Amino acid sequence: MNEVSAPARVADPGEGISAEELRLAGRNHALPLEALRYDVTPAGLHYLLIHYDIPDLDPAGHRLVLDGRVERPLTLDLADLRDRPRVTHRVTMECAGNGRALLDPRPVSQPWLVEAVGTAEWTGTPLAPLLREAGLAADAVDVVFTGADHGVERGIEQDYRRALPLAAAVEDGPLLAYEMNGAPLLPQHGAPLRLVVPGWYGMASVKWLTRITVLNREFDGYQNAVAYRLRQRPDEAGVPVTRIEPRALVRPPGFPDFMSRGRVLRPGPCTVDGRAWSGHAPVVRVEVTTDGGATWSPAELEPAPAGPWAWRRWRYAWTARPGRYVLSARAVDASGRTQPVEQAWNRGGFANNLVQRVNVAVLPEPEPGD
Amino acid sequence: MNEVSAPARVADPGEGISAEELRLAGRNHALPLEALRYDVTPAGLHYLLIHYDIPDLDPAGHRLVLDGRVERPLTLDLADLRDRPRVTHRVTMECAGNGRALLDPRPVSQPWLVEAVGTAEWTGTPLAPLLREAGLAADAVDVVFTGADHGVERGIEQDYRRALPLAAAVEDGPLLAYEMNGAPLLPQHGAPLRLVVPGWYGMASVKWLTRITVLNREFDGYQNAVAYRLRQRPDEAGVPVTRIEPRALVRPPGFPDFMSRGRVLRPGPCTVDGRAWSGHAPVVRVEVTTDGGATWSPAELEPAPAGPWAWRRWRYAWTARPGRYVLSARAVDASGRTQPVEQAWNRGGFANNLVQRVNVAVLPEPEPGD
Repeated sequence: MNEVSAPARVADPGEGISAEELRLAGRNHALPLEALRYDVTPAGLHYLLIHYDIPDLDPAGHRLVLDGRVERPLTLDLADLRDRPRVTHRVTMECAGNGRALLDPRPVSQPWLVEAVGTAEWTGTPLAPLLREAGLAADAVDVVFTGADHGVERGIEQDYRRALPLAAAVEDGPLLAYEMNGAPLLPQHGAPLRLVVPGWYGMASVKWLTRITVLNREFDGYQNAVAYRLRQRPDEAGVPVTRIEPRALVRPPGFPDFMSRGRVLRPGPCTVDGRAWSGHAPVVRVEVTTDGGATWSPAELEPAPAGPWAWRRWRYAWTARPGRYVLSARAVDASGRTQPVEQAWNRGGFANNLVQRVNVAVLPEPEPGD
Repeated sequence: MNEVSAPARVADPGEGISAEELRLAGRNHALPLEALRYDVTPAGLHYLLIHYDIPDLDPAGHRLVLDGRVERPLTLDLADLRDRPRVTHRVTMECAGNGRALLDPRPVSQPWLVEAVGTAEWTGTPLAPLLREAGLAADAVDVVFTGADHGVERGIEQDYRRALPLAAAVEDGPLLAYEMNGAPLLPQHGAPLRLVVPGWYGMASVKWLTRITVLNREFDGYQNAVAYRLRQRPDEAGVPVTRIEPRALVRPPGFPDFMSRGRVLRPGPCTVDGRAWSGHAPVVRVEVTTDGGATWSPAELEPAPAGPWAWRRWRYAWTARPGRYVLSARAVDASGRTQPVEQAWNRGGFANNLVQRVNVAVLPEPEPGD
């Protein structure tokens, strides 16, 4: 198994993106940045991170088992879940590895730039009442969620499996979702059933959910104990990756060059806009720079969006004069967290919210008679 | 404009994938290879190649103009088009640049591996009767299709615009599509209206269609005369890229390693399957190798699929014994065209149908008692 599954590594200085990273980039779709225009991301434009293969599951035969440290283990089919209370949450979800490929040195894994995000309306049944119905044991500590996707990672064969601390699992938020944007889940988003944990990076929202197991100890499986930890050195225990750090993204103005994706803009008034979100607390301020970070000005925030877990739109009035610019935005949330302008590095490239940089060339004023 | 939009180039020997190529790979989604299991590719898994930005079009206000060398220019809204004869074609579409990133030396552009393909059911109205109704002039030569996506490419600002020779435009096949897989077009697939040209590489199927113009000369616009031509040297006129060359893809068996995407398989009988297609003529044979091309054996072809333009499923019974393998398949079509096992290089990396290579590690036989 070790022949096909190597240990984690960090790229050498100046090392280009490898064939392996490119293969992951082809599979794991990012949000095209112009899609920041949509309040709810249309099907097929929401980011995707799939650890192994999309499994082929039959909804009719699908069962969810709830077991472990509960008084009454349950086995539920999709009809059982649909008969339970139904809620819809609008949730902005982001991959924990977003921004990884911009780090220096670059952790070698799925090479995200800044676009591993999307907002969807997830419909399903809340998790907490189901756990209460099963009867949580007094010594319950972690709740483990198992997906049907199977593979090997750093030498360890596994079904994808992630735990939430009990306190997070029983919050008002996590739901067992069977619809996305009003339609049955697409195969790549976890059909027929997935977990959605609002406010947490995407690794917590286990797709293709088959089992929920309550433990009386901390879960020591691969995705919690080995992957998804903030570390400077490979031999550290590290700190778990949990909630989404604040981030603002600029919807790039003007029109693009095909190859460089650099932006071209005609001179004159221009409304720069984008979205901002945080998994810790509501976004309370967005600031914009058009001079590469020398000065920052406040953007106008749209009224609070539908629900506490969805991104918030912002706008900034700019008069674009001929020349070259670097545009960025940074979000501040109610907990006081914000985004760094210099990278904060960790070995996995997780929870990185370095500000985005958008290169814009504003064309010369047209000559009279043009 | 030239500051943001550089000339085409070929990568240096050993040069890794650049940040620019990675940015394109994040935007332009590929088909995850396990999705070869679906006859019709689900929403969001079909490949996407978007030259500029996805435009934001209002279906209610959308108009299609048909003009140029016709007797009766037409302006049609979506209701007009929906009132016309309605057809549904199942079409396998592939990007002309598929396979580019595997070429040596590598043309620097959207860095596709082998997954730039998908099959959809497109519903709309046939193109040929509309052209006849407008009254084609006797001197008509080319039909130009203009999309609403706007950008700059190699220094040339443009709306995306591609022409078909008249003979191809009036064939039974091209349609003006307003639905994909039974639903209104998604924004990224050309909403509210696009051209679909079965059998041709995807660059012909202009998305976000606003205008059809009949010319009495060969169209000399960028996408026909500069891009999408087969050339060895940059100063050649080159040969236009047209119909899809035959290709077979293997649906990778077993399960993957997260990082390398190498496959792991337990020993024993294994049905290897995949899809094959050609834009020139029906696929009549698929051959499989499990020894890296030393020997080839015929695969079993499924009965002809729905319509002449959709991929065909194939299967091959393999007994996997412990060890390491390279699996490939190659398609042969009724015109005698097939796939090379050594690359056929051109500067744009177009129409490349080099056989895919799938690395498989078959695990040792379990020990008794395991």
